[in-house]
Amino acid sequence: MVLARVVGTVVSSHKSQKIEGIKFLLLDKIDPVSMKGKGDFVVSMDSVGAGPGDIVFYVSGSSARNTDVTEGKPSDSAVIAIVDHIEKDGAFTYQKNR
Amino acid sequence: MVLARVVGTVVSSHKSQKIEGIKFLLLDKIDPVSMKGKGDFVVSMDSVGAGPGDIVFYVSGSSARNTDVTEGKPSDSAVIAIVDHIEKDGAFTYQKNR
Amino acid sequence: MVLARVVGTVVSSHKSQKIEGIKFLLLDKIDPVSMKGKGDFVVSMDSVGAGPGDIVFYVSGSSARNTDVTEGKPSDSAVIAIVDHIEKDGAFTYQKNR
Amino acid sequence: MVLARVVGTVVSSHKSQKIEGIKFLLLDKIDPVSMKGKGDFVVSMDSVGAGPGDIVFYVSGSSARNTDVTEGKPSDSAVIAIVDHIEKDGAFTYQKNR
Amino acid sequence: MVLARVVGTVVSSHKSQKIEGIKFLLLDKIDPVSMKGKGDFVVSMDSVGAGPGDIVFYVSGSSARNTDVTEGKPSDSAVIAIVDHIEKDGAFTYQKNR
Repeated sequence: MVLARVVGTVVSSHKSQKIEGIKFLLLDKIDPVSMKGKGDFVVSMDSVGAGPGDIVFYVSGSSARNTDVTEGKPSDSAVIAIVDHIEKDGAFTYQKNR
Repeated sequence: MVLARVVGTVVSSHKSQKIEGIKFLLLDKIDPVSMKGKGDFVVSMDSVGAGPGDIVFYVSGSSARNTDVTEGKPSDSAVIAIVDHIEKDGAFTYQKNR
Repeated sequence: MVLARVVGTVVSSHKSQKIEGIKFLLLDKIDPVSMKGKGDFVVSMDSVGAGPGDIVFYVSGSSARNTDVTEGKPSDSAVIAIVDHIEKDGAFTYQKNR
Repeated sequence: MVLARVVGTVVSSHKSQKIEGIKFLLLDKIDPVSMKGKGDFVVSMDSVGAGPGDIVFYVSGSSARNTDVTEGKPSDSAVIAIVDHIEKDGAFTYQKNR
Repeated sequence: MVLARVVGTVVSSHKSQKIEGIKFLLLDKIDPVSMKGKGDFVVSMDSVGAGPGDIVFYVSGSSARNTDVTEGKPSDSAVIAIVDHIEKDGAFTYQKNR
Protein backbone atom coordinates (compact mmCIF):
# COMPACT_ATOMS: atom_id res chain seq x y z
CA MET A 1 0.00 0.00 0.00
CA VAL A 2 1.08 3.57 -0.58
CA LEU A 3 0.74 6.65 1.65
CA ALA A 4 -0.97 9.72 0.21
CA ARG A 5 -2.87 12.89 1.10
CA VAL A 6 -6.43 13.49 -0.08
CA VAL A 7 -6.16 16.73 -2.08
CA GLY A 8 -9.41 16.82 -4.05
CA THR A 9 -12.09 15.01 -5.98
CA VAL A 10 -12.77 14.02 -9.57
CA VAL A 11 -16.36 14.16 -10.85
CA SER A 12 -17.73 12.37 -13.91
CA SER A 13 -21.32 12.19 -15.11
CA HIS A 14 -20.44 10.04 -18.12
CA LYS A 15 -18.86 6.80 -16.92
CA SER A 16 -19.12 3.03 -16.70
CA GLN A 17 -22.45 2.08 -15.06
CA LYS A 18 -20.58 -0.13 -12.62
CA ILE A 19 -18.95 2.83 -10.90
CA GLU A 20 -22.09 4.92 -10.37
CA GLY A 21 -22.30 6.26 -6.81
CA ILE A 22 -18.63 5.84 -6.00
CA LYS A 23 -16.57 8.78 -4.77
CA PHE A 24 -13.35 9.42 -6.68
CA LEU A 25 -10.64 10.99 -4.56
CA LEU A 26 -7.64 12.80 -5.97
CA LEU A 27 -4.61 11.66 -4.00
CA ASP A 28 -1.09 13.08 -3.92
CA LYS A 29 1.50 10.50 -2.88
CA ILE A 30 3.60 11.66 0.07
CA ASP A 31 7.05 11.08 1.42
CA PRO A 32 6.41 9.65 4.92
CA VAL A 33 9.50 11.34 6.37
CA SER A 34 8.96 14.94 5.23
CA MET A 35 5.20 14.36 4.83
CA LYS A 36 5.39 16.50 1.68
CA GLY A 37 3.39 15.70 -1.42
CA LYS A 38 5.33 14.36 -4.38
CA GLY A 39 3.12 15.92 -7.03
CA ASP A 40 2.45 12.36 -8.17
CA PHE A 41 -1.33 12.00 -8.39
CA VAL A 42 -3.71 9.05 -8.56
CA VAL A 43 -7.51 8.79 -8.67
CA SER A 44 -8.70 6.37 -5.99
CA MET A 45 -12.10 4.99 -5.00
CA ASP A 46 -13.04 5.83 -1.42
CA SER A 47 -14.06 2.89 0.81
CA VAL A 48 -13.66 4.55 4.23
CA GLY A 49 -15.16 8.06 4.07
CA ALA A 50 -11.86 9.91 3.69
CA GLY A 51 -11.92 13.69 3.17
CA PRO A 52 -9.70 16.64 2.22
CA GLY A 53 -6.37 16.72 4.03
CA ASP A 54 -6.59 13.19 5.39
CA ILE A 55 -3.46 11.06 5.27
CA VAL A 56 -4.50 7.68 3.93
CA PHE A 57 -3.09 4.58 2.36
CA TYR A 58 -4.56 2.98 -0.71
CA VAL A 59 -4.32 -0.45 -2.27
CA SER A 60 -3.54 -0.96 -5.97
CA GLY A 61 -4.20 -3.66 -8.53
CA SER A 62 -6.73 -6.48 -8.24
CA SER A 63 -6.95 -6.02 -4.45
CA ALA A 64 -8.62 -2.66 -5.10
CA ARG A 65 -11.71 -4.77 -5.82
CA ASN A 66 -11.51 -6.46 -2.38
CA THR A 67 -13.45 -3.83 -0.41
CA ASP A 68 -17.21 -3.70 0.29
CA VAL A 69 -17.51 -0.62 -1.95
CA THR A 70 -15.47 -1.78 -4.94
CA GLU A 71 -16.26 -5.50 -5.26
CA GLY A 72 -16.72 -6.44 -8.92
CA LYS A 73 -15.98 -2.86 -10.06
CA PRO A 74 -13.33 -1.76 -12.54
CA SER A 75 -11.06 -0.36 -9.82
CA ASP A 76 -7.27 -0.36 -9.62
CA SER A 77 -6.98 1.92 -6.58
CA ALA A 78 -9.01 2.06 -3.36
CA VAL A 79 -8.46 4.02 -0.15
CA ILE A 80 -8.68 1.45 2.67
CA ALA A 81 -7.41 3.34 5.74
CA ILE A 82 -7.21 6.82 7.25
CA VAL A 83 -3.89 7.04 9.07
CA ASP A 84 -3.65 7.96 12.79
CA HIS A 85 0.09 8.06 12.98
CA ILE A 86 3.27 7.04 11.22
CA GLU A 87 6.25 5.97 13.28
CA LYS A 88 9.73 5.75 11.77
CA ASP A 89 12.92 4.82 13.63
CA GLY A 90 11.17 5.29 16.99
CA ALA A 91 9.73 8.76 16.36
CA PHE A 92 6.44 9.96 14.89
CA THR A 93 6.67 11.59 11.48
CA TYR A 94 2.90 12.12 11.55
CA GLN A 95 0.15 12.26 14.17
CA LYS A 96 -3.43 13.07 13.23
CA ASN A 97 -4.96 16.16 14.87
CA ARG A 98 -1.59 17.65 15.78
CA MET B 1 -7.02 5.21 -11.89
CA VAL B 2 -4.97 7.72 -13.84
CA LEU B 3 -6.01 10.98 -15.51
CA ALA B 4 -5.24 11.46 -19.20
CA ARG B 5 -6.27 13.33 -22.34
CA VAL B 6 -7.50 11.51 -25.44
CA VAL B 7 -5.04 12.59 -28.15
CA GLY B 8 -5.63 10.06 -30.93
CA THR B 9 -6.38 6.54 -32.02
CA VAL B 10 -4.46 3.41 -32.92
CA VAL B 11 -5.75 1.20 -35.74
CA SER B 12 -4.85 -2.43 -36.35
CA SER B 13 -6.31 -4.80 -38.93
CA HIS B 14 -4.12 -7.70 -37.82
CA LYS B 15 -4.83 -8.49 -34.18
CA SER B 16 -6.13 -11.01 -31.67
CA GLN B 17 -9.68 -12.06 -32.65
CA LYS B 18 -10.84 -11.26 -29.13
CA ILE B 19 -10.30 -7.55 -29.59
CA GLU B 20 -12.14 -7.14 -32.91
CA GLY B 21 -14.51 -4.17 -32.84
CA ILE B 22 -12.88 -2.40 -29.92
CA LYS B 23 -11.71 1.21 -30.23
CA PHE B 24 -8.12 1.83 -29.19
CA LEU B 25 -7.54 5.31 -27.85
CA LEU B 26 -4.14 6.96 -27.61
CA LEU B 27 -3.96 8.67 -24.24
CA ASP B 28 -1.43 11.16 -22.91
CA LYS B 29 -1.23 11.16 -19.12
CA ILE B 30 -1.75 14.62 -17.63
CA ASP B 31 -0.71 16.50 -14.56
CA PRO B 32 -4.03 17.40 -12.88
CA VAL B 33 -2.70 20.73 -11.59
CA SER B 34 -1.28 22.24 -14.81
CA MET B 35 -3.51 19.99 -16.97
CA LYS B 36 -0.52 19.61 -19.32
CA GLY B 37 0.26 16.33 -21.03
CA LYS B 38 3.29 14.46 -19.77
CA GLY B 39 4.25 12.96 -23.14
CA ASP B 40 3.72 9.58 -21.46
CA PHE B 41 1.39 7.62 -23.72
CA VAL B 42 -0.76 4.52 -23.28
CA VAL B 43 -3.15 2.67 -25.60
CA SER B 44 -6.47 2.17 -23.84
CA MET B 45 -9.71 0.40 -24.77
CA ASP B 46 -12.70 2.73 -24.84
CA SER B 47 -15.73 1.69 -22.78
CA VAL B 48 -17.54 5.05 -22.59
CA GLY B 49 -17.45 6.67 -26.04
CA ALA B 50 -14.61 9.08 -25.29
CA GLY B 51 -13.30 11.28 -28.12
CA PRO B 52 -10.42 13.62 -29.02
CA GLY B 53 -9.63 16.20 -26.35
CA ASP B 54 -11.68 14.56 -23.61
CA ILE B 55 -10.16 14.38 -20.15
CA VAL B 56 -10.73 10.85 -18.91
CA PHE B 57 -9.50 8.41 -16.35
CA TYR B 58 -8.60 4.85 -17.16
CA VAL B 59 -8.21 1.71 -15.10
CA SER B 60 -5.15 -0.56 -15.41
CA GLY B 61 -4.41 -4.21 -14.77
CA SER B 62 -6.96 -7.00 -14.36
CA SER B 63 -9.74 -4.48 -13.64
CA ALA B 64 -9.44 -3.33 -17.25
CA ARG B 65 -11.42 -6.49 -18.01
CA ASN B 66 -14.25 -5.44 -15.64
CA THR B 67 -16.23 -3.32 -18.10
CA ASP B 68 -19.06 -4.39 -20.41
CA VAL B 69 -16.82 -3.81 -23.43
CA THR B 70 -13.65 -5.53 -22.25
CA GLU B 71 -14.89 -8.57 -20.29
CA GLY B 72 -12.75 -11.61 -21.08
CA LYS B 73 -10.54 -9.59 -23.45
CA PRO B 74 -6.75 -9.24 -23.27
CA SER B 75 -6.94 -5.68 -21.91
CA ASP B 76 -4.69 -3.96 -19.39
CA SER B 77 -6.12 -0.45 -19.82
CA ALA B 78 -9.72 0.74 -20.22
CA VAL B 79 -11.20 4.24 -20.22
CA ILE B 80 -14.06 4.13 -17.69
CA ALA B 81 -15.00 7.79 -17.21
CA ILE B 82 -15.08 11.14 -19.02
CA VAL B 83 -14.25 13.80 -16.45
CA ASP B 84 -16.57 16.78 -15.77
CA HIS B 85 -14.33 18.55 -13.34
CA ILE B 86 -11.30 18.14 -11.13
CA GLU B 87 -11.21 19.95 -7.81
CA LYS B 88 -7.96 20.36 -5.87
CA ASP B 89 -7.56 22.22 -2.57
CA GLY B 90 -10.97 23.82 -2.98
CA ALA B 91 -10.53 25.16 -6.53
CA PHE B 92 -11.22 23.70 -9.95
CA THR B 93 -8.16 22.81 -11.99
CA TYR B 94 -10.45 21.61 -14.80
CA GLN B 95 -14.07 22.13 -15.84
CA LYS B 96 -15.43 20.57 -19.02
CA ASN B 97 -16.74 23.00 -21.66
CA ARG B 98 -14.91 25.98 -20.23
CA MET C 1 -1.41 -1.49 -23.82
CA VAL C 2 1.95 -0.13 -24.83
CA LEU C 3 3.36 0.63 -28.30
CA ALA C 4 6.65 -0.98 -29.28
CA ARG C 5 8.79 -2.05 -32.24
CA VAL C 6 9.81 -5.68 -32.75
CA VAL C 7 13.62 -5.55 -32.75
CA GLY C 8 14.62 -9.18 -32.26
CA THR C 9 14.02 -12.53 -30.64
CA VAL C 10 15.07 -14.37 -27.50
CA VAL C 11 15.74 -18.12 -27.70
CA SER C 12 15.80 -20.54 -24.78
CA SER C 13 16.14 -24.33 -24.89
CA HIS C 14 15.97 -24.66 -21.10
CA LYS C 15 12.64 -23.29 -19.87
CA SER C 16 9.32 -24.00 -18.19
CA GLN C 17 7.53 -26.80 -20.08
CA LYS C 18 4.44 -24.64 -20.27
CA ILE C 19 6.09 -22.18 -22.65
CA GLU C 20 7.45 -24.72 -25.16
CA GLY C 21 6.69 -23.68 -28.75
CA ILE C 22 6.05 -20.04 -27.99
CA LYS C 23 7.96 -17.31 -29.84
CA PHE C 24 9.61 -14.72 -27.62
CA LEU C 25 9.92 -11.32 -29.24
CA LEU C 26 12.32 -8.64 -28.09
CA LEU C 27 10.42 -5.35 -28.11
CA ASP C 28 11.69 -1.80 -27.78
CA LYS C 29 9.06 0.58 -26.45
CA ILE C 30 8.54 3.59 -28.72
CA ASP C 31 7.45 7.18 -28.39
CA PRO C 32 4.35 7.38 -30.63
CA VAL C 33 5.13 10.95 -31.68
CA SER C 34 8.76 10.63 -32.81
CA MET C 35 8.34 6.85 -33.39
CA LYS C 36 11.84 6.43 -31.92
CA GLY C 37 12.74 3.52 -29.67
CA LYS C 38 13.25 4.33 -26.01
CA GLY C 39 15.92 1.68 -25.41
CA ASP C 40 13.48 0.20 -22.90
CA PHE C 41 13.16 -3.48 -23.74
CA VAL C 42 10.67 -6.21 -22.85
CA VAL C 43 10.35 -9.87 -23.84
CA SER C 44 6.85 -10.55 -25.10
CA MET C 45 5.02 -13.68 -26.27
CA ASP C 46 3.79 -13.42 -29.84
CA SER C 47 0.09 -14.16 -30.44
CA VAL C 48 -0.32 -12.56 -33.88
CA GLY C 49 2.69 -13.52 -36.04
CA ALA C 50 4.57 -10.26 -35.63
CA GLY C 51 8.03 -9.92 -37.18
CA PRO C 52 11.11 -7.68 -37.23
CA GLY C 53 10.34 -3.99 -37.67
CA ASP C 54 6.63 -4.28 -37.00
CA ILE C 55 5.01 -1.66 -34.80
CA VAL C 56 2.82 -3.52 -32.33
CA PHE C 57 1.10 -3.09 -29.03
CA TYR C 58 1.32 -5.60 -26.24
CA VAL C 59 -0.75 -6.29 -23.16
CA SER C 60 0.82 -6.71 -19.70
CA GLY C 61 -0.14 -8.45 -16.49
CA SER C 62 -2.77 -11.16 -16.08
CA SER C 63 -4.40 -10.20 -19.39
CA ALA C 64 -1.26 -11.50 -21.13
CA ARG C 65 -2.80 -14.93 -20.46
CA ASN C 66 -6.04 -13.98 -22.28
CA THR C 67 -4.93 -14.89 -25.81
CA ASP C 68 -5.31 -18.21 -27.64
CA VAL C 69 -1.54 -18.71 -27.53
CA THR C 70 -0.85 -17.80 -23.90
CA GLU C 71 -3.85 -19.18 -22.00
CA GLY C 72 -2.73 -20.80 -18.75
CA LYS C 73 0.93 -19.93 -19.45
CA PRO C 74 3.27 -17.99 -17.18
CA SER C 75 3.10 -14.85 -19.35
CA ASP C 76 3.12 -11.20 -18.29
CA SER C 77 3.45 -9.72 -21.80
CA ALA C 78 1.79 -10.69 -25.08
CA VAL C 79 1.75 -8.97 -28.46
CA ILE C 80 -1.93 -8.72 -29.45
CA ALA C 81 -1.91 -6.36 -32.46
CA ILE C 82 0.23 -5.24 -35.38
CA VAL C 83 -0.44 -1.54 -35.90
CA ASP C 84 -1.62 -0.12 -39.24
CA HIS C 85 -1.51 3.50 -38.25
CA ILE C 86 -1.31 5.85 -35.32
CA GLU C 87 -3.21 9.13 -35.45
CA LYS C 88 -2.47 11.95 -33.03
CA ASP C 89 -4.14 15.39 -33.01
CA GLY C 90 -5.58 14.75 -36.47
CA ALA C 91 -2.36 13.69 -38.23
CA PHE C 92 -0.68 10.33 -38.73
CA THR C 93 2.52 9.78 -36.78
CA TYR C 94 2.80 6.31 -38.32
CA GLN C 95 1.41 4.49 -41.34
CA LYS C 96 2.47 0.95 -42.16
CA ASN C 97 4.19 0.40 -45.52
CA ARG C 98 5.09 4.05 -45.93
CA MET D 1 9.94 -9.92 -4.55
CA VAL D 2 11.76 -6.83 -3.37
CA LEU D 3 14.29 -6.39 -0.56
CA ALA D 4 13.58 -3.78 2.11
CA ARG D 5 14.31 -2.77 5.69
CA VAL D 6 11.55 -2.47 8.29
CA VAL D 7 11.80 1.16 9.44
CA GLY D 8 8.51 1.74 11.25
CA THR D 9 4.79 1.16 11.51
CA VAL D 10 1.61 2.81 10.28
CA VAL D 11 -1.43 2.84 12.58
CA SER D 12 -5.04 3.41 11.53
CA SER D 13 -8.17 3.17 13.68
CA HIS D 14 -10.48 4.05 10.77
CA LYS D 15 -10.07 1.46 8.04
CA SER D 16 -11.69 -1.30 6.00
CA GLN D 17 -13.13 -3.94 8.37
CA LYS D 18 -11.29 -6.62 6.42
CA ILE D 19 -7.90 -5.41 7.56
CA GLU D 20 -8.66 -5.20 11.30
CA GLY D 21 -5.91 -6.82 13.38
CA ILE D 22 -3.24 -6.70 10.70
CA LYS D 23 0.10 -5.03 11.38
CA PHE D 24 1.18 -2.45 8.80
CA LEU D 25 4.92 -2.15 8.46
CA LEU D 26 6.67 0.83 6.91
CA LEU D 27 9.39 -0.51 4.63
CA ASP D 28 12.25 1.29 2.94
CA LYS D 29 13.48 -0.48 -0.18
CA ILE D 30 17.20 -1.20 -0.09
CA ASP D 31 20.03 -1.61 -2.55
CA PRO D 32 21.28 -5.16 -1.85
CA VAL D 33 24.89 -4.23 -2.61
CA SER D 34 25.35 -1.16 -0.39
CA MET D 35 22.45 -2.26 1.87
CA LYS D 36 21.44 1.41 2.04
CA GLY D 37 17.83 2.50 2.04
CA LYS D 38 16.56 4.16 -1.11
CA GLY D 39 14.10 6.48 0.63
CA ASP D 40 11.43 4.69 -1.39
CA PHE D 41 8.74 3.61 1.06
CA VAL D 42 5.88 1.13 0.97
CA VAL D 43 3.29 0.03 3.55
CA SER D 44 3.26 -3.76 3.78
CA MET D 45 1.18 -6.26 5.73
CA ASP D 46 3.25 -8.42 8.05
CA SER D 47 2.81 -12.20 7.71
CA VAL D 48 5.98 -13.36 9.51
CA GLY D 49 6.42 -11.26 12.68
CA ALA D 50 9.04 -8.90 11.28
CA GLY D 51 10.27 -6.02 13.44
CA PRO D 52 12.31 -2.81 13.30
CA GLY D 53 15.62 -3.14 11.49
CA ASP D 54 14.87 -6.52 9.94
CA ILE D 55 15.87 -7.04 6.33
CA VAL D 56 12.91 -8.65 4.61
CA PHE D 57 11.46 -9.27 1.22
CA TYR D 58 7.86 -8.61 0.36
CA VAL D 59 5.55 -9.78 -2.39
CA SER D 60 3.42 -7.35 -4.43
CA GLY D 61 0.19 -7.56 -6.39
CA SER D 62 -2.41 -10.31 -6.16
CA SER D 63 0.10 -12.69 -4.54
CA ALA D 64 0.05 -10.41 -1.48
CA ARG D 65 -3.26 -12.16 -0.74
CA ASN D 66 -1.60 -15.61 -0.83
CA THR D 67 -0.46 -15.72 2.82
CA ASP D 68 -2.31 -17.08 5.85
CA VAL D 69 -2.65 -13.55 7.23
CA THR D 70 -3.79 -11.73 4.11
CA GLU D 71 -6.08 -14.21 2.32
CA GLY D 72 -9.13 -12.42 0.93
CA LYS D 73 -7.90 -9.05 2.22
CA PRO D 74 -7.37 -5.90 0.17
CA SER D 75 -3.58 -6.25 0.21
CA ASP D 76 -1.06 -5.39 -2.49
CA SER D 77 2.07 -5.88 -0.37
CA ALA D 78 2.94 -8.55 2.22
CA VAL D 79 6.20 -9.33 4.01
CA ILE D 80 6.80 -13.05 3.48
CA ALA D 81 10.41 -13.59 4.67
CA ILE D 82 12.98 -12.25 7.11
CA VAL D 83 16.35 -12.49 5.39
CA ASP D 84 19.31 -14.38 6.95
CA HIS D 85 21.84 -13.47 4.33
CA ILE D 86 22.27 -12.10 0.85
CA GLU D 87 25.05 -13.48 -1.33
CA LYS D 88 26.17 -11.68 -4.49
CA ASP D 89 29.01 -12.76 -6.80
CA GLY D 90 30.26 -15.21 -4.18
CA ALA D 91 30.41 -12.82 -1.22
CA PHE D 92 27.92 -11.86 1.46
CA THR D 93 26.52 -8.34 1.21
CA TYR D 94 24.41 -9.00 4.30
CA GLN D 95 24.43 -11.46 7.21
CA LYS D 96 21.89 -11.20 10.02
CA ASN D 97 23.30 -10.63 13.53
CA ARG D 98 26.65 -9.38 12.26
CA MET E 1 9.07 -10.84 -19.27
CA VAL E 2 12.30 -9.11 -18.36
CA LEU E 3 15.90 -10.11 -19.06
CA ALA E 4 18.29 -10.39 -16.11
CA ARG E 5 21.51 -11.99 -14.91
CA VAL E 6 21.58 -14.32 -11.89
CA VAL E 7 24.01 -12.61 -9.51
CA GLY E 8 23.35 -14.33 -6.19
CA THR E 9 20.93 -15.86 -3.74
CA VAL E 10 18.82 -14.74 -0.80
CA VAL E 11 18.41 -17.10 2.17
CA SER E 12 15.69 -16.93 4.80
CA SER E 13 15.01 -19.39 7.64
CA HIS E 14 12.03 -17.39 8.93
CA LYS E 15 9.41 -17.14 6.20
CA SER E 16 5.90 -18.00 5.08
CA GLN E 17 5.40 -21.78 5.26
CA LYS E 18 4.16 -21.77 1.70
CA ILE E 19 7.57 -20.86 0.31
CA GLU E 20 9.60 -23.51 2.15
CA GLY E 21 11.99 -25.32 -0.19
CA ILE E 22 12.00 -22.67 -2.90
CA LYS E 23 15.25 -21.15 -4.13
CA PHE E 24 15.37 -17.36 -4.14
CA LEU E 25 17.62 -15.93 -6.81
CA LEU E 26 19.00 -12.41 -6.76
CA LEU E 27 18.66 -11.02 -10.27
CA ASP E 28 20.15 -7.89 -11.80
CA LYS E 29 18.14 -6.60 -14.75
CA ILE E 30 20.25 -6.18 -17.88
CA ASP E 31 20.26 -4.02 -20.96
CA PRO E 32 20.01 -6.57 -23.81
CA VAL E 33 22.19 -4.48 -26.13
CA SER E 34 25.21 -3.84 -23.91
CA MET E 35 24.39 -6.91 -21.74
CA LYS E 36 25.42 -4.81 -18.72
CA GLY E 37 23.59 -5.01 -15.41
CA LYS E 38 21.45 -2.03 -14.49
CA GLY E 39 22.00 -2.32 -10.75
CA ASP E 40 18.24 -2.82 -10.51
CA PHE E 41 17.69 -5.94 -8.43
CA VAL E 42 14.76 -8.29 -7.87
CA VAL E 43 14.34 -11.49 -5.84
CA SER E 44 12.86 -14.20 -8.03
CA MET E 45 11.74 -17.79 -7.41
CA ASP E 46 13.64 -20.31 -9.51
CA SER E 47 11.55 -22.72 -11.59
CA VAL E 48 14.22 -23.92 -14.04
CA GLY E 49 17.44 -24.60 -12.10
CA ALA E 50 19.19 -21.35 -13.02
CA GLY E 51 22.59 -20.60 -11.50
CA PRO E 52 25.16 -17.83 -11.06
CA GLY E 53 25.94 -15.93 -14.27
CA ASP E 54 23.03 -17.31 -16.25
CA ILE E 55 21.09 -14.89 -18.44
CA VAL E 56 17.43 -15.57 -17.79
CA PHE E 57 14.04 -14.01 -18.17
CA TYR E 58 11.49 -13.91 -15.41
CA VAL E 59 7.75 -13.38 -15.30
CA SER E 60 6.12 -10.89 -12.92
CA GLY E 61 2.71 -10.53 -11.31
CA SER E 62 0.04 -13.21 -11.01
CA SER E 63 1.68 -15.28 -13.77
CA ALA E 64 4.59 -15.88 -11.38
CA ARG E 65 2.25 -18.43 -9.79
CA ASN E 66 1.77 -20.26 -13.13
CA THR E 67 4.81 -22.54 -12.88
CA ASP E 68 5.03 -26.06 -11.41
CA VAL E 69 7.21 -24.72 -8.58
CA THR E 70 5.23 -21.63 -7.62
CA GLU E 71 1.59 -22.66 -8.01
CA GLY E 72 -0.49 -21.29 -5.14
CA LYS E 73 2.55 -19.59 -3.59
CA PRO E 74 2.90 -15.91 -2.71
CA SER E 75 5.17 -15.20 -5.67
CA ASP E 76 5.36 -12.09 -7.85
CA SER E 77 8.52 -13.07 -9.76
CA ALA E 78 9.61 -16.43 -11.20
CA VAL E 79 12.51 -17.35 -13.49
CA ILE E 80 10.97 -19.33 -16.35
CA ALA E 81 13.79 -19.57 -18.93
CA ILE E 82 17.57 -19.69 -19.23
CA VAL E 83 18.49 -17.80 -22.38
CA ASP E 84 20.55 -19.37 -25.19
CA HIS E 85 20.85 -16.30 -27.33
CA ILE E 86 19.45 -12.84 -27.90
CA GLU E 87 19.21 -11.55 -31.44
CA LYS E 88 18.63 -7.84 -32.18
CA ASP E 89 18.45 -6.26 -35.62
CA GLY E 90 19.90 -9.40 -37.21
CA ALA E 91 22.95 -9.79 -34.94
CA PHE E 92 23.50 -11.64 -31.68
CA THR E 93 23.95 -9.47 -28.61
CA TYR E 94 24.34 -12.61 -26.49
CA GLN E 95 25.20 -16.25 -27.09
CA LYS E 96 25.54 -18.69 -24.18
CA ASN E 97 28.94 -20.37 -23.76
CA ARG E 98 30.77 -17.78 -25.84
